[in-house]
Amino acid sequence: MRLGAGPQVRPADASAQDDVRRANLSSVLRLLHFHGPATRSDLVASTGFNRSTVGSLTSELTKLGLVRERPGVVGGKGRPSNLVEPVSTGAHVLAFDVTPSSVGAARVGLGGYMLQVRRRLHSTSSHDVPAVVQLIATLATEMQARAATGSVCLGIVVSVMGSVRQPDGLVRRSPPLGWHEVPLADLLREATGHKYPVAVGNDGDLGAVAEYLRGAARGTQDVLYVRGEVGVGGGVVVDGELLKGAGGYAGEVGHIVVKPGGRTCSCGARGCWEAEVGDGAIIRAVGRDPRESEIEDVLSDVAIGNRRAISGVRKTGEWVGLGLASLVNIFNPRIVVLGGTLGALYPTMEPTLASSFSRTLGPMREQAMIVRGELGSDAQLVGASEVAFADVLEDPAGTLEARTAQADEHEDHPLRVLHQAG
Amino acid sequence: MRLGAGPQVRPADASAQDDVRRANLSSVLRLLHFHGPATRSDLVASTGFNRSTVGSLTSELTKLGLVRERPGVVGGKGRPSNLVEPVSTGAHVLAFDVTPSSVGAARVGLGGYMLQVRRRLHSTSSHDVPAVVQLIATLATEMQARAATGSVCLGIVVSVMGSVRQPDGLVRRSPPLGWHEVPLADLLREATGHKYPVAVGNDGDLGAVAEYLRGAARGTQDVLYVRGEVGVGGGVVVDGELLKGAGGYAGEVGHIVVKPGGRTCSCGARGCWEAEVGDGAIIRAVGRDPRESEIEDVLSDVAIGNRRAISGVRKTGEWVGLGLASLVNIFNPRIVVLGGTLGALYPTMEPTLASSFSRTLGPMREQAMIVRGELGSDAQLVGASEVAFADVLEDPAGTLEARTAQADEHEDHPLRVLHQAG
Repeated sequence: MRLGAGPQVRPADASAQDDVRRANLSSVLRLLHFHGPATRSDLVASTGFNRSTVGSLTSELTKLGLVRERPGVVGGKGRPSNLVEPVSTGAHVLAFDVTPSSVGAARVGLGGYMLQVRRRLHSTSSHDVPAVVQLIATLATEMQARAATGSVCLGIVVSVMGSVRQPDGLVRRSPPLGWHEVPLADLLREATGHKYPVAVGNDGDLGAVAEYLRGAARGTQDVLYVRGEVGVGGGVVVDGELLKGAGGYAGEVGHIVVKPGGRTCSCGARGCWEAEVGDGAIIRAVGRDPRESEIEDVLSDVAIGNRRAISGVRKTGEWVGLGLASLVNIFNPRIVVLGGTLGALYPTMEPTLASSFSRTLGPMREQAMIVRGELGSDAQLVGASEVAFADVLEDPAGTLEARTAQADEHEDHPLRVLHQAG
Repeated sequence: MRLGAGPQVRPADASAQDDVRRANLSSVLRLLHFHGPATRSDLVASTGFNRSTVGSLTSELTKLGLVRERPGVVGGKGRPSNLVEPVSTGAHVLAFDVTPSSVGAARVGLGGYMLQVRRRLHSTSSHDVPAVVQLIATLATEMQARAATGSVCLGIVVSVMGSVRQPDGLVRRSPPLGWHEVPLADLLREATGHKYPVAVGNDGDLGAVAEYLRGAARGTQDVLYVRGEVGVGGGVVVDGELLKGAGGYAGEVGHIVVKPGGRTCSCGARGCWEAEVGDGAIIRAVGRDPRESEIEDVLSDVAIGNRRAISGVRKTGEWVGLGLASLVNIFNPRIVVLGGTLGALYPTMEPTLASSFSRTLGPMREQAMIVRGELGSDAQLVGASEVAFADVLEDPAGTLEARTAQADEHEDHPLRVLHQAG
């Protein structure tokens, strides 16, 4: 149930018809975006609309340049149904993923197609903000230049490890990057000439969105995503909605207390889950020195069957299972998706993880399946792209119009000039 | 954003008008139910509808017997606006709260008025299921007999400490009651002659609903409610929705791990938060024996300034703050409401609680206010009643019609006969 007393203003006038039309367009575009090409018959079956409504909706989406139709393959009896497909070069998103070592970038077309992917190492190890902003702006310009003529850029979305305030994209704190109170969205908007909407999201949230919409958690409504990558982040999908909390900071699963008085965490407190299962903890658990080794060393040790590495990873698995038990007791998810290091090492730590996870309350333990993420290190880019696709999926015509107007308005302010002036 | 690809079927026909009308009726009734009597002018201002729409909606609700109008007080300039108020004897809910020691019961009228409240101690200490079912059915019959003629009973809702499967109200486990797999909703439906809808909810969830709608968390959208009562339960409101999880079990905050290898919890695992801050732990912390003392002894010791008691409670406060830090890092609530024992002792444990809570990540710590619940031991009854009011608030006319039909259909099966036959 939706709780509470908020009055819903619902005027009983002509605009209700527009609402219905918009919702129907949205339904069809969503299906194509998430499930790929479909025949008109498929669309009739999936939406419950009649054949002529589907025809009219696909025509309108075709005019908008978002879908195209081609004759379907003849099969079975009757006329072949036209095949409708999303046009990946009709609209796109510029997605970025900032990690302590690199910036990942992708141009993602409608339908979720990764049209272009790149990754650049940071030029300095200090991740100084202007350099990162410049790098993202440069990559955005390069990728935008290669976009198909007429493809509408829906926006720039950046994944960052840290607490990101919503909706304004202020990075409050990012221990891995050493950032505090960085107005990343504002800086990027300026650096790209105000031509695109810019959003910034937490890496755990975006990973959760990605695995939910296009990865291991597809088809489920209650998802817990946990990413081990330097530290430990996460995101939660509750009944099909991303858990945000009052300020957009929710889902900092790495900072539940699992060992009072334990090791000091990146957040400054002691005994956080991250301090026991983050990359540094795993490196220590296998007997290596975190100042000299990287998590990749552990992964390759495990891959070649090094006993000490396997034993250390299993030991860590106990702590992973313990923290997951707490989280599952709280969220009652249908699926737990492990990403990053934790996903990579899950097969190795599975026995010990399962053993400590068995403390989860029975009714919730029965319902929760633990799996590895399917999207690997692309998860953040995929999730970032879906944030920007959300608007066009909600209101295809209105969003295209708004984006085109914004781009036109700022066309006479070339990116480079503006940036130098700033 | 609402994630995902689910097509929304929105037929563009006449039923859209009915939807709008229903939503508008709902808006007005919600306002009156939650905010009490209002002038027509207030309703115009709050809903954004024009004066004639508000007049027509209140007339329809009056015909349904859910609201009544009386001339408003003259004040300021112009004609006095009619005062519209919910009719507490127009529709009511029978709400119950099962604890290890007693069954609380209330007849709650529209507008949230507690028209009748009772509490009966269990006849046996074993809480055997048939006796509890019989007690609830008897109380329901007694309270229903005293309801105003014509008042529509919207349903029976029972609060239970334990994991309750939704939507069928099967109590999977309730350690305080010693129950396992008890189909409480089914048993009560049978015991009351199938005359009413019956729902069963978790005490933490219902407390959260109550404090959110009518208590300390009113006006906020992101709420964490924690109840200390024998064990520790809780409920979470996320952006105005109760967190349920895949099976309705979410929010078992008492079973996050805070002390690996610690004391054995009622759930069988070691080191749960409940084992450190539940009633038993508090009794031990003040140097009493849980087999001989009750939590009330601690409360009275604290009230008279007993130093040992105060010191023990403060020690427990450290663990309370530690667990709250984990939960706030996960949920980013605007308000944390403490109910039951934890609410009662909050002023005493505040200094130590605040100290360990300070480990919460800054952005979330800044946003979270910790307060005592306002509804005390009525919270579960209030929350239970709101579960049954939800339907009539969503669709006033349709719900009344359905409830009246259900009651009429089973009128010829007197409750007592059916129960003896079973």
